[in-house]
Amino acid sequence: MWWSNKIVRVLRCRNEQRSGTLGSLLTAIGAVGGLVGEIKVIRVGRETMVRDVMVFADDFSHLNIILEAIHHTPGVKLLEVRDEVLEMHRGGKIAVRSRYSVKTPTDLRKVYTPGVAEVSLRIKENPEEARLYTAIPHLVAIVTDGTAVLGLGDIGPLAAMPVMEGKATLMETLVGLSGMPILLNTHNVDEIVDTVARIALTFGAIQLEDISAPRCFEIEERLIEQLDMPVIHDDQHGTAVVVAAALLNAIRLAKMDIESATIGQIGLGAAGYSIAKMLKNLSGRPVLGADLSADALRRHEEAGGIPSTLEEIMAKADIVVATTGVPGLIKPEMIRAGQVMLALSNPAPEIEPELAMEAGASFAADGKSVNNVLGFPGILRGAIDANVPYVSENMYLVAAKTIASLTQTGELVPNPLNREVHWKVARAVAQAALDEGLARADLSGYFDNL
Amino acid sequence: MWWSNKIVRVLRCRNEQRSGTLGSLLTAIGAVGGLVGEIKVIRVGRETMVRDVMVFADDFSHLNIILEAIHHTPGVKLLEVRDEVLEMHRGGKIAVRSRYSVKTPTDLRKVYTPGVAEVSLRIKENPEEARLYTAIPHLVAIVTDGTAVLGLGDIGPLAAMPVMEGKATLMETLVGLSGMPILLNTHNVDEIVDTVARIALTFGAIQLEDISAPRCFEIEERLIEQLDMPVIHDDQHGTAVVVAAALLNAIRLAKMDIESATIGQIGLGAAGYSIAKMLKNLSGRPVLGADLSADALRRHEEAGGIPSTLEEIMAKADIVVATTGVPGLIKPEMIRAGQVMLALSNPAPEIEPELAMEAGASFAADGKSVNNVLGFPGILRGAIDANVPYVSENMYLVAAKTIASLTQTGELVPNPLNREVHWKVARAVAQAALDEGLARADLSGYFDNL
Repeated sequence: MWWSNKIVRVLRCRNEQRSGTLGSLLTAIGAVGGLVGEIKVIRVGRETMVRDVMVFADDFSHLNIILEAIHHTPGVKLLEVRDEVLEMHRGGKIAVRSRYSVKTPTDLRKVYTPGVAEVSLRIKENPEEARLYTAIPHLVAIVTDGTAVLGLGDIGPLAAMPVMEGKATLMETLVGLSGMPILLNTHNVDEIVDTVARIALTFGAIQLEDISAPRCFEIEERLIEQLDMPVIHDDQHGTAVVVAAALLNAIRLAKMDIESATIGQIGLGAAGYSIAKMLKNLSGRPVLGADLSADALRRHEEAGGIPSTLEEIMAKADIVVATTGVPGLIKPEMIRAGQVMLALSNPAPEIEPELAMEAGASFAADGKSVNNVLGFPGILRGAIDANVPYVSENMYLVAAKTIASLTQTGELVPNPLNREVHWKVARAVAQAALDEGLARADLSGYFDNL
Repeated sequence: MWWSNKIVRVLRCRNEQRSGTLGSLLTAIGAVGGLVGEIKVIRVGRETMVRDVMVFADDFSHLNIILEAIHHTPGVKLLEVRDEVLEMHRGGKIAVRSRYSVKTPTDLRKVYTPGVAEVSLRIKENPEEARLYTAIPHLVAIVTDGTAVLGLGDIGPLAAMPVMEGKATLMETLVGLSGMPILLNTHNVDEIVDTVARIALTFGAIQLEDISAPRCFEIEERLIEQLDMPVIHDDQHGTAVVVAAALLNAIRLAKMDIESATIGQIGLGAAGYSIAKMLKNLSGRPVLGADLSADALRRHEEAGGIPSTLEEIMAKADIVVATTGVPGLIKPEMIRAGQVMLALSNPAPEIEPELAMEAGASFAADGKSVNNVLGFPGILRGAIDANVPYVSENMYLVAAKTIASLTQTGELVPNPLNREVHWKVARAVAQAALDEGLARADLSGYFDNL
């Protein structure tokens, strides 16, 4: 996420009641580089007005500069600096809830003994009935070892928990799945694979999150092989799906044809590797790939890509995607006229879109426009509902195309909080599973409410 | 649980509207050994009355006998046989829920990026803040390999899921904890210990459930040693706490003094072993123990007990607890005058309480009176709230005494659905932790609302 390192505060300000005060306040904040989010009116007085202004700062010293700027704004009195985000995190963001209240002995007999015994015996006789009579099919393990969290890097599994809870929160809100964080205290590939495989029975799907490359490749691969359920490394496939969707819209805007275009991927980490693979599937042509690691280049080649260099890609490619984490890596003079340029690194891109456009690109965007949240919920929901043994390349492709097709004019991707988008992705993924013969669930009626 | 093997059905009956019809119906059901639960009035007509009668049967052929008996009851028409319990299980009994709704970009920025990053970094700097700003402290792993489930035995982890969900349901309802089932696909002790240890970071406590003896002993012991959090094998300690509470009330009724009484435990499986240990701690004297397994006797001796035999215990002990799983094992002629007899095996006890009383026991009860649900919720809540490194023998003892003290006259134990009981147990356990110097949480204010 592009601004994953920002800090967020709510500033309660009392402004004098005359026109222009709020404008001066926001101008003052903006002048020192602060970003403004939601603004709420708290109290309307005769002579003053109290508002909560959400502000994003780069770090604490930046926040102090913003506060200082407010202090010098005429007519504005800063009453309070609040950390609402931290307050929201108190007690965590998720909870496991009972779907039934248990108040009477009869309730107890139904949810627990003796009622439960017959349900257990049914499942013993017909294990597939666990899909009907347990929470398993809607439980998704969100597994991390905390080694590659947001833009924060290797902060460890405990510190990754708020991020995992955030994912769980989104799974429930957007598609009604039950995301359960699983924090691993090991970085060892064998141990991670064994541990996840041993508890996988509990879940309908496994979402691997924020596990660093190159371990993430082997871990995902081995779990896909061992487990008869969707296993998704979100940082690879979730990102690739959303980037592919954005790119489909970008090349439409640039009036380019993906099937005849030369495509280059700069940076072959978890996201880059997977983006390159998806763009190869989308275009039907091999993708040029550049990375400083020989291992990464070899992996790219094994996946059907062509090893290349930054310079070669910039000189040859019609479409360039960069995920290197190196701000300013791409100089304006490297841009070829007409190029489509997605420079996705956060918080600062390889080249600012404005610079790329000035240098002749036909379309340019950075990571701000591409939200990961668009991918995983619908893909998981569709894969789980279809009860697939694994998520195929084609299902990812269909997800990307569906997301692209649901984008409103003037946007690169749809609003990630639009639940309808996620449910349409789910149904498209389930339909793809059905078409490929991978759906094992009875999907009659599933497509009725499209 | 005593009737864990019963099947439950709701019978919709239309009775003629005249006095005595419902009585004949229930008499007919009772005459063939059916048990009756809740009765609901569905429709009151001029000439008929429709009711839902919940019925417990031993098995399907028994259910058929009951249905046949109803068929022959004058004035009663059986309209429908419903499996309400199964219907309730559709979709499972639990779900992971977001505590916040995520509807606007501002919501998203708070629960996910960028807001979440600062919370993660705080925890990275001060890992103990995970207790404040994540769900971890209220998450409890309910871990099973499905080898000793209820009275059903080794039905496997998948079939155990409805039982684990039932536990989770009760944790939330009774003490607001988030119970998360973890199903293990291995029976290997090393693998179970390693797997649980590797994911333990995710949870505030580990509850081991329905893992067969003797593996359960080693697994619990090693996890207690490795993990800095409460680890409880419910089948041992939960059961022992509730049995000890029942026994404290039983000997009060029998006007016996536990400190001078000879106590015998027949059957040294998971529950029996742990009950014997707790009774030793309660009475301050070694407990006689009998089991067919030499290993079980050795374990009992190592825990401070005296190996003995069924015959010797029956001849010598003032207080006898039996958990053998063998119905009718204790003959009336073996009962000593004045003995207190708890024959706890389910569904049929070692000796029926009535027979034991006729044979001269001063008090007798079976497993019907002792509900496991009374133990684990309060113990876990107190141990978690106090943030203990492990649950001490004394905390279990205090829990047993608290449960005993909250019992209403005429009962052996309190109503397990009384939340107040569980919260009082929690506070007593936390107080015990504080007294022992094991509480690491700030408990100021915790005892105010007793």
